[in-house]
Amino acid sequence: MNKGLPKRSENYSEWYNELVKRADLADHSDVRGCMVIKPYGYSIWEKMQQALDKKFKETGHSNAYFPVFVPKSLFEAEEKNAEGFAKECAVVTHYRLKTDPYKKGQLIVDPDAKLEEELIVRPTSEAVIWSTYKKWIQSYRDLPLLINQWANVVRWEMRTRIFLRTAEFLWQEGHTAHATQDEAMQETLTMLEVYAEFAEKYMALPVIKGRKTENERFAGAVETFCIEALMQDGKALQAGTSHFLGQNFAKAFDVKFSNKDNTLEYVWGTSWGVSTRLMGALIMAHSDDEGLVLPPLLAPIQVVIVPIFKTAEQLNSISEKAQHIKKLLEEKNITVKYDNSDKQTPGFKFAEYELKGVPLRIAIGPRDLENNTIEIARRDTKEKKSIAFSELVHIVPQWLSSIQENLYQRALNFRSKHTHICDSYGQFQKILDNEGGFILAHWDGSPETEEKIKEETKATIRCIPLDFKKENGKCIYSGKPSVGRVLFARAY
Amino acid sequence: MNKGLPKRSENYSEWYNELVKRADLADHSDVRGCMVIKPYGYSIWEKMQQALDKKFKETGHSNAYFPVFVPKSLFEAEEKNAEGFAKECAVVTHYRLKTDPYKKGQLIVDPDAKLEEELIVRPTSEAVIWSTYKKWIQSYRDLPLLINQWANVVRWEMRTRIFLRTAEFLWQEGHTAHATQDEAMQETLTMLEVYAEFAEKYMALPVIKGRKTENERFAGAVETFCIEALMQDGKALQAGTSHFLGQNFAKAFDVKFSNKDNTLEYVWGTSWGVSTRLMGALIMAHSDDEGLVLPPLLAPIQVVIVPIFKTAEQLNSISEKAQHIKKLLEEKNITVKYDNSDKQTPGFKFAEYELKGVPLRIAIGPRDLENNTIEIARRDTKEKKSIAFSELVHIVPQWLSSIQENLYQRALNFRSKHTHICDSYGQFQKILDNEGGFILAHWDGSPETEEKIKEETKATIRCIPLDFKKENGKCIYSGKPSVGRVLFARAY
Repeated sequence: MNKGLPKRSENYSEWYNELVKRADLADHSDVRGCMVIKPYGYSIWEKMQQALDKKFKETGHSNAYFPVFVPKSLFEAEEKNAEGFAKECAVVTHYRLKTDPYKKGQLIVDPDAKLEEELIVRPTSEAVIWSTYKKWIQSYRDLPLLINQWANVVRWEMRTRIFLRTAEFLWQEGHTAHATQDEAMQETLTMLEVYAEFAEKYMALPVIKGRKTENERFAGAVETFCIEALMQDGKALQAGTSHFLGQNFAKAFDVKFSNKDNTLEYVWGTSWGVSTRLMGALIMAHSDDEGLVLPPLLAPIQVVIVPIFKTAEQLNSISEKAQHIKKLLEEKNITVKYDNSDKQTPGFKFAEYELKGVPLRIAIGPRDLENNTIEIARRDTKEKKSIAFSELVHIVPQWLSSIQENLYQRALNFRSKHTHICDSYGQFQKILDNEGGFILAHWDGSPETEEKIKEETKATIRCIPLDFKKENGKCIYSGKPSVGRVLFARAY
Repeated sequence: MNKGLPKRSENYSEWYNELVKRADLADHSDVRGCMVIKPYGYSIWEKMQQALDKKFKETGHSNAYFPVFVPKSLFEAEEKNAEGFAKECAVVTHYRLKTDPYKKGQLIVDPDAKLEEELIVRPTSEAVIWSTYKKWIQSYRDLPLLINQWANVVRWEMRTRIFLRTAEFLWQEGHTAHATQDEAMQETLTMLEVYAEFAEKYMALPVIKGRKTENERFAGAVETFCIEALMQDGKALQAGTSHFLGQNFAKAFDVKFSNKDNTLEYVWGTSWGVSTRLMGALIMAHSDDEGLVLPPLLAPIQVVIVPIFKTAEQLNSISEKAQHIKKLLEEKNITVKYDNSDKQTPGFKFAEYELKGVPLRIAIGPRDLENNTIEIARRDTKEKKSIAFSELVHIVPQWLSSIQENLYQRALNFRSKHTHICDSYGQFQKILDNEGGFILAHWDGSPETEEKIKEETKATIRCIPLDFKKENGKCIYSGKPSVGRVLFARAY
């Protein structure tokens, strides 16, 4: 089944591409740079959405929906934001097609249907949302405004990669408005924490919380915070961002509120988002040469039951048992699939569910029926064990928790092993070229030095960690004084 | 609060527009023809989505996601479908903006970033999905393929109306592929039934199931089935459609499978969808001059508790009781809001929750505390009653069911009263001009007659009801023979 999946150690990039395709997660489409998310992949995304959506609502946010198009004049209003996205905008210029007079059955753009003002397909929705907030906010009583949107966005990337960088992707974008700077900053950090908790608890993905340097900030933000994760090939991946927008968008769109003293003030804003990029992070963080490895909390199928049989009679007896097990586990809110197909061998099925990352496999054969046992196997460690049927309802939930915990711990150990403290530029380059990983190093704080390091090594400052410690040192590049280490890595 | 909401009898259309705005359902945006769905409106849509999504999964479908863009060459492939949508397509022609050299801070479309092939923003996804199915389907083992997508689509409508007809709207679109004609037809009808059940059970909206005439068929379908509902102004609204596509898209995109005899055959297809248009139907079917009336199964807040107090001490005692009630009802899976704000009077709150269609209101005052009673009031009938506190947990669920049932019954009675059996064209015109409603009348079966009637009266054949009875008669327009009555109405 998984014959031919490339090994991570030989070609990590090919391994990823093949895995995405063969585990039925996603596919390239006929539209340049856009992906098709297949049902199995989409069901993982749905689990992510559910967990995040619940958390957003618990923290007081409501969902809403804003237009997919941004008129050019609105898009321009916040200058830095517009500049940041202008080079990757899909632009709608016409609203009608007509029959090609020269080619039968073909259509051409109708030149008479040119829009007066071009529409940008949203690369992000600050512009269209803040132009709406202007209508919704008059008084301090209208604040805070805590809104989230689940949507598709388009950024015309030249080099695309399924889940990691696609022209169209799915995401959620929170957009909030507040009466004070403090409250907006608090919101920015609260949502960063929501993302970090989600990554660690659900995705089993340890992350480093930090703030971006000026160079890496979201266009139009005063501060950008992020969570950064480390992939198995030693490259970093930005898994979520939360932006403190200050009054930038309020000023660009003239959004003021009258405070308790009846004075007009500009509103303070935040925005924050995670996207289908998380799917890429999930795949790359845990999977192995046999296929996908999924944390149980995000696995569409948590347990698969495979019957081992020769005769139809055996299958019947096993099926009865299997249906009983399915019911018992479903009562404990565990998602179970019983695969009773007689078209594939058990070996084929084992390989298939390994490829698809199902956390636990239960196998039942005729001898198990006699002995009242089942065989249970973990996807993460490949550990197998024959257990008494009566133990099942205790052991399955335990093992699922244990897999969730093990994946996190394994990723954390990997990260610890691949986080380097480095004090010389030579060593810095050597680490990057040999094993990669995170590098904590001194930096002089200047955008110029950051840019030079990026040019020469392709490593960027992922973040200034929130648990940044004051420590005097010298910039590894310029030798100038530094007050603490920042986090470098090559990144996706 | 709802002062100034126009009366339905005076200006139904203005009543609808104002209600949508004032009940915080949706708003116009700065983008021509596109709406903003506000949090309260969106939370109703979320409830609709949840109920439908559950039903789609129970009937074997999985969700997936396909690109928002359709390359022009794919769009053209199914000729009738392309023709049907060509006139309302938003077309992306460029992928970059650049700084306007003549105007500081402004952007222009970069003429060097013209796409080689234009991209259509999907008006519907048959083209992009069937071009993908070609890659996914080889053998009968790959069938049936049962996929649904929740997405935004764009149809450049000239006259727009919030929820009912907008340039961008949200919907779900099911796209299935089958080995046989029978199975595809069965799927088409199963999904029609899913829609009808959803409309009747959740929306409390009685619908007539039927098949569209050729004139009204979905472009590219062999048969279109629909559910049709009647609004309070006597106009019909198409609330969902399910299309039997035959082999049209399979042929256009060359999608074949090898059957059990190893022979290649074209695949049979269906597609089916409902959209945010359902929000319009929900509003118009039940609401009154005081505001929205929501069926409990789709109400974001099912019960609101309003305290009646003068002193802070009274509020404290009432709040204790209210929190207790909230907890008791939430244990029964009832969604409760306790509005303890001291900024508005109880009267203001009563009007506000009436406007927002909250099905049940509980009021508690100091005397209720003494007597251990509460006042409970229904939104639909305005019935009010003082009940003993101990009865609460029984009466609230009963009343909620009763409201759900009453709304359905009321809408059904309205429809019965406004469904006319009509045998002359003069009477037909009179009914349309005076009271509207559904008209069951004989039609000769020709597209020409249908077109003439539409031109002269603005009424269309909504459907040929599935419970169509053979009955010989004469076409009300042409006098030619007819074999049964079809359903006419003016429609949204």
